[in-house]
Amino acid sequence: MKKYAEMTKEELIAEREALLKRYNDFKDMGLNLDMSRGKPGKDQLDLSMDLLKYNNYIEDGIDLRNYGILDGIPSCKKLFADLLDVEPKNILLGPNASLSIMFDYLAQAYSHGVCGSTPWNDIPDIKFLCPVPGYDRHFTILEYFNIKMINVPMKSDGPDMDKIEELIKDEKVKGMFCVPKYSNPQGITYSDEVVRRIAALKPAAEDFRIIWDNAYCVHELYDEGDTLLNIFDVLGDYGNEDMVIEVCSTSKMTFPGAGISALAASDNNIADIKRRLNCQTISYDKMNQYRHVKFFGDVEGIKAHMKKHAAIMRPKFEMVIKHLENELKTRGIASWINPKGGYFISLDVMNGCAKRTGELCKEAGVTLTTVGATYPYFNDPNDSNIRIAPSLPPVEELDIAAQILCVSVCIACAEKLLETK
Amino acid sequence: MKKYAEMTKEELIAEREALLKRYNDFKDMGLNLDMSRGKPGKDQLDLSMDLLKYNNYIEDGIDLRNYGILDGIPSCKKLFADLLDVEPKNILLGPNASLSIMFDYLAQAYSHGVCGSTPWNDIPDIKFLCPVPGYDRHFTILEYFNIKMINVPMKSDGPDMDKIEELIKDEKVKGMFCVPKYSNPQGITYSDEVVRRIAALKPAAEDFRIIWDNAYCVHELYDEGDTLLNIFDVLGDYGNEDMVIEVCSTSKMTFPGAGISALAASDNNIADIKRRLNCQTISYDKMNQYRHVKFFGDVEGIKAHMKKHAAIMRPKFEMVIKHLENELKTRGIASWINPKGGYFISLDVMNGCAKRTGELCKEAGVTLTTVGATYPYFNDPNDSNIRIAPSLPPVEELDIAAQILCVSVCIACAEKLLETK
Repeated sequence: MKKYAEMTKEELIAEREALLKRYNDFKDMGLNLDMSRGKPGKDQLDLSMDLLKYNNYIEDGIDLRNYGILDGIPSCKKLFADLLDVEPKNILLGPNASLSIMFDYLAQAYSHGVCGSTPWNDIPDIKFLCPVPGYDRHFTILEYFNIKMINVPMKSDGPDMDKIEELIKDEKVKGMFCVPKYSNPQGITYSDEVVRRIAALKPAAEDFRIIWDNAYCVHELYDEGDTLLNIFDVLGDYGNEDMVIEVCSTSKMTFPGAGISALAASDNNIADIKRRLNCQTISYDKMNQYRHVKFFGDVEGIKAHMKKHAAIMRPKFEMVIKHLENELKTRGIASWINPKGGYFISLDVMNGCAKRTGELCKEAGVTLTTVGATYPYFNDPNDSNIRIAPSLPPVEELDIAAQILCVSVCIACAEKLLETK
Repeated sequence: MKKYAEMTKEELIAEREALLKRYNDFKDMGLNLDMSRGKPGKDQLDLSMDLLKYNNYIEDGIDLRNYGILDGIPSCKKLFADLLDVEPKNILLGPNASLSIMFDYLAQAYSHGVCGSTPWNDIPDIKFLCPVPGYDRHFTILEYFNIKMINVPMKSDGPDMDKIEELIKDEKVKGMFCVPKYSNPQGITYSDEVVRRIAALKPAAEDFRIIWDNAYCVHELYDEGDTLLNIFDVLGDYGNEDMVIEVCSTSKMTFPGAGISALAASDNNIADIKRRLNCQTISYDKMNQYRHVKFFGDVEGIKAHMKKHAAIMRPKFEMVIKHLENELKTRGIASWINPKGGYFISLDVMNGCAKRTGELCKEAGVTLTTVGATYPYFNDPNDSNIRIAPSLPPVEELDIAAQILCVSVCIACAEKLLETK
């Protein structure tokens, strides 16, 4: 198959006709396939049902059913401390979603500042750095607090550090969101060099905070996954212990709606956050914390459990990749990264063709993540990025959905090229 | 026994000697009894263990283990709608504590205002009305957001409405916290007249909000409990539909640390709150919502369950009341209300004697709620109020604890009177 760029007008018209015929055949199937969100499939949820079989809720003589223990039960703090390789004293357990931890932390910075700094809401026009493409829910939080988002392009080993080192000279830049391992949506893991350069940042804003959303810390697809340098091991080398707030959760380990979340941070940040937590809650769900400890046992237990998820997820990723390889590569109209973990595949199509691809998919019964959502303000400057979430549909549905996606990409690109012929 | 006020100096000295002897005998027992917080006892927690036996998590074909359903599952929304006698569309289910709902709502008002009003943080010196004595955690939230608290004395049928109607003429007064049924700590239920006068308020502040903390809505101690007029039934009569945010939870029905909470409000308020929730979380714990629906079945199931709690709580309240009657009444140095529900007994001792009573109790191994905590800023102007929380200790321990409390009150009052003889 020729690259589209090398095709004549006539060849493109013929190609488009062939594509439309195939597309309409799919359309006639009246499908309803969802590749929009990183939702685990039912078979993944079934992996964790034993979580519910533990019903002794006494730990160290404390009745976990009752009030109290603001920062989480010791055994569960240790489990997450081991998982994130920090001290238990630097862990706070949270509600059922790390999203809430991040939102509540921004809310605290907004009303009270961080560690005694000026409340962010008293400083006009503050900004946050957003590696793009990125996670739409991070952008939603920043938009809620009216914090201006600045795009930082992702490279193959993490965000563009030259650009970041330049941007943080602006004291209005108060922080940055990062998904350092198997990034959402590209599945990129930050290299040691990038992590070190982040740890070494010298922002003009003393209250600069990096939200280190380690959502996919143990979410490998293959036996040998990527390794991420533990940023807390290097922050101290640069006197930046307080610069990073790390979060993670069991949302994609056990139950997305009923897991537990955790935050890791320096002693100063933990104390600062606990001052707010003391007013906001009495304790999070300790019974659920206990169930997770009993279910996983230890970090090795978590890793063994995640291998079961991988066995379910791997064929789904490979099915999508297979079709991308077969149908898009030779046409030279799209690029993507084959992730070794995480929940998404990020597809970059010819500029100006992403939205149209989304429309075509929708018409044929395939729902993608809203095209544009991977950029702040839904504004993908090139209209080229599409996030594919293969986790929810069964493999046989993905087989069809991926073909529909590929045909839609081809049609959108062919149309685009014909505009200028 | 003579009233202390009528005793001569010599009689008081003799009385104090006798009291101190008894007090020291208690002290020698080296006890450690806790009447500080409204913590249910273990036998109460055991009542709800069947909650954990349900493990089918499909409702209306939706897998409740997964992401989604921001405002809670329909069956559980209906359960709380029936409990609070509102429409399910006016219910939002929350996290494991209604305290978080209240904190997050104040945080939203602080950063974004309510229903489009000016963010409260942009208005200097705003104030909230606090019926006193009241719930310390309400005060903590207001203090966190630097909202000035104004005491409003409680009367036998609710807060002093004349005072409230006067105070709300100040547009800086943005709201009020109420515990309308079995108030914390007095156990007073607002009369229909008080509820109507609250519903009819015409505050100068258009964004005036009443946090209607109905924490003890079904927490009767006796078969015939108090009845509270449903404020949502009368708000409309005065065009005040948006003025009240009601909250409740299962903290004292099932598991304090692992229950579910709910908010009831007008369509406008629900829409306003959901705009924030959309940024803060994906969903709260739907599996726990489902367990509660299965466990209770319906409102009648909740009421039947609460009778089991009452059977455990009633003897504890009666044990404390018995000692108050026997030891304090005749001496004329204290007053209290015998509540028909809730979790507390509020004891008012001679002015200037509450803190000293707390110290004496502490020395003898009895922990009370920090004296003063029932007033904003821990400032009880008369130093007279003591909150007694009888739920946690077994009855036989309460027997001793209540005696120690009474002896301590008597000593503190005798000392006080002797100062002026």
